Amino acid sequence: MSAGEFDLIARYFSRPARRVPLGVGDDCALLALESGQQLAVSCDTLVEGRHFLSTVDPQRLGHKALAVNLSDLAACGARPVAFMLALSMPHIDEVFLEGFSRGLYALADEQAVDLVGGDTTAGPLAMTITAFGEVPAGRALLRSGARPGDDLWASGTLGDARLALEAFRGRVRLDGEVFEAVRLAMECPVPRVSLGQALRDVASAAIDVSDGLLGDLAHVLRRSGAPDAPLGASLEAAAVPVSAHLAVQPWHLQLECALGGGDDYVFCVTARPDRSDAVLAASSAAGVPLTRIGRIDAEPGVRIRGRNGELLDHAFTSFDHFRA
Amino acid sequence: MSAGEFDLIARYFSRPARRVPLGVGDDCALLALESGQQLAVSCDTLVEGRHFLSTVDPQRLGHKALAVNLSDLAACGARPVAFMLALSMPHIDEVFLEGFSRGLYALADEQAVDLVGGDTTAGPLAMTITAFGEVPAGRALLRSGARPGDDLWASGTLGDARLALEAFRGRVRLDGEVFEAVRLAMECPVPRVSLGQALRDVASAAIDVSDGLLGDLAHVLRRSGAPDAPLGASLEAAAVPVSAHLAVQPWHLQLECALGGGDDYVFCVTARPDRSDAVLAASSAAGVPLTRIGRIDAEPGVRIRGRNGELLDHAFTSFDHFRA
Repeated sequence: MSAGEFDLIARYFSRPARRVPLGVGDDCALLALESGQQLAVSCDTLVEGRHFLSTVDPQRLGHKALAVNLSDLAACGARPVAFMLALSMPHIDEVFLEGFSRGLYALADEQAVDLVGGDTTAGPLAMTITAFGEVPAGRALLRSGARPGDDLWASGTLGDARLALEAFRGRVRLDGEVFEAVRLAMECPVPRVSLGQALRDVASAAIDVSDGLLGDLAHVLRRSGAPDAPLGASLEAAAVPVSAHLAVQPWHLQLECALGGGDDYVFCVTARPDRSDAVLAASSAAGVPLTRIGRIDAEPGVRIRGRNGELLDHAFTSFDHFRA
Repeated sequence: MSAGEFDLIARYFSRPARRVPLGVGDDCALLALESGQQLAVSCDTLVEGRHFLSTVDPQRLGHKALAVNLSDLAACGARPVAFMLALSMPHIDEVFLEGFSRGLYALADEQAVDLVGGDTTAGPLAMTITAFGEVPAGRALLRSGARPGDDLWASGTLGDARLALEAFRGRVRLDGEVFEAVRLAMECPVPRVSLGQALRDVASAAIDVSDGLLGDLAHVLRRSGAPDAPLGASLEAAAVPVSAHLAVQPWHLQLECALGGGDDYVFCVTARPDRSDAVLAASSAAGVPLTRIGRIDAEPGVRIRGRNGELLDHAFTSFDHFRA
C-alpha cells in the first residue's frame, strides 16, 4: 500500500471538526473544555475475527466501533465531544471504507461528536477508537460508589447479543427474523448517552455491561469494597430483563445469555433504595427502561435466586471474545 | 487466550495514576485541565512487520510506542500529561510484556506522564497509544503558521533511522558500532518535549518529522498556504544536519536519508528572521541544536540547492513504512 493510497483512506475520515478548536491534520488535535468540566476518556479496540466477523456489514461495524466507546463515556455520565480513530487495513477496500465511514459518521452526527484525528496504517484489519467526553468535576459515575443495601438495576434487555453469537456458532437455531433482530443487537448496540447523564447524582455506581452482567458486576463489587474485601450481591434471575426473543428460549440458555452474556452495552447501576423514584425519573427522561434486578450485600459473592426462589449453583462463564 | 490471561497482561499496565483524578480500571479515565489550558491529543499505531521488526528489543519498542506520541505533542508545544494504551497480542509472552512495559514506564516516568487506561485484546501484535497534553489556549504550535520569508530550521540530525533501515534491508553495509548507533536512533527516538514548549511564541510553525523532511515540510507548506496555493521553500541540502555516521556515506545516500528519511522525530520549524535569536535561545534552553536549513517562499514547490549551489533535480521518495 503506498503513501498515496493512505491519503485516500485518510480522506474518508477528514471532515472538518465543528465543535473543537483544531481537528484532523496537525500533529495533534486540540480540545477545549468548559470551565468546571473534567475530561472523560475511553479506548476500545475491535479486531477482525475476535470482535467482529469478516462478513459483518461495514456500516454496522463503523457504528459499533464508535458506539462501544460512547457507551463507556455514558456509563461515566459524560457528554461525548470528540474521538480519534486508529485504523489498520491490509489493503484498500473502498466498499468497506465507504460503508464503515458512513456508519461511523451517522452515529457521530447523531451524538454531535467530532472525529478529530487518528492514524491509518497497513496491517491486519483492526480499529482503536479513543473517545473524549466532558463531565462536571467530581460528578462522574464511577464503579466504586456502590454500598451494601443499594438496589441493583439494569437498563434495557440483556442477552440478545450472546444469543446471536450462539446462533452464529451453530449451537442455537433461530428463525430468520429472530436471528436478524438479535444480530442487530450484537452488531448495532445503542450507547445510552442520555441515560448516563440523567443518572448523575442519582446512581451510586454504574458500569456498562460489555463482558457479561456477572463479570461486569464483579468489577463494581471489587472496586466498591475494601481492598481485600469486595462487596457481594443478591440477584433475582427472573427479574433480569430479556427480550421476547430470548424469553422463549430454554431457561438455562436464558440464564447463560442474560447473566454470562457479552456485548450487551446496557448499564448495570446501583442506587440507594430511597433514590428509586429518581432512578425511574432518569429512566423516563432518557426513554430507556431500568429494571430492579437485585441488591448489593456486605457479604462477598453473588447469590443468584431462580424462578422459585431457589439458590442457583451458577457457573456462567463470563463472556470471552477469545473463545469465539 | 483466556480472560484470566488478559487480566495478567493488564496487570503489567495497572500502576496507579498519580497526576490525574482517575486512571486505569473504570469505564473511563478522568483528566482535569488547568484553567486556560487546551487539551492536545495525538494518536499513533505501530504494527509488527510494518513499523517494527519481530526481532526488536521489547524495551525499545515500549519506549518508541510512547515516544512517537510525545513527539507529536511536543511539536504542538504541549506539555504531556497522560496516555492510553491499546495493545493486541497473539499470545501471552511475558518476556515481551516485561520488557515492553519497562521501556514504556521508563519514558513515562522521565516525562511525568500517567498511563490512565486502554484496552488489551487478542490479535496480531500491534499497539495504539493516544497521548494527552496541555497547552495554553491559543498558543499551540501549528503547521499552518509559516509565512514567506520565514527561516526554516531543523532540530538535531536527520537520516540516521533511514540509514539503519537501509542496513537492515542489506543495501548498505555498516560497521557494528555504527550500525548499533543508527539502529538506536531508529528504535529509541527522543521526543523533544522541552524544545516544543520553548518554541511556543517563537516559531511560526512546527511539525515533527516522522515521514521524511520533504514529506513533512510539504504538510507545513500546504497548510500554511491558501487552499489552492501552497507555499514553497528553498532548502540548502548541505546545511541539513546529519550525524558523523551519515556524513561519511556517499552524498546521494546522505540526501536520500536526510531529506527522504523517515522515523527521524526531529522538528522542522519555521520562524520569522527577526526571531533567530529567540530560536537559538530556545535551542539552548532545551539543550537541542537547531540548524537553519532554508527559507519559506511564496512560490510553490521546494527548490533544493546542492553543495555548489546547483539546483538538485530531487525525486527523493518520502519515507513509506509500507514498502519496508
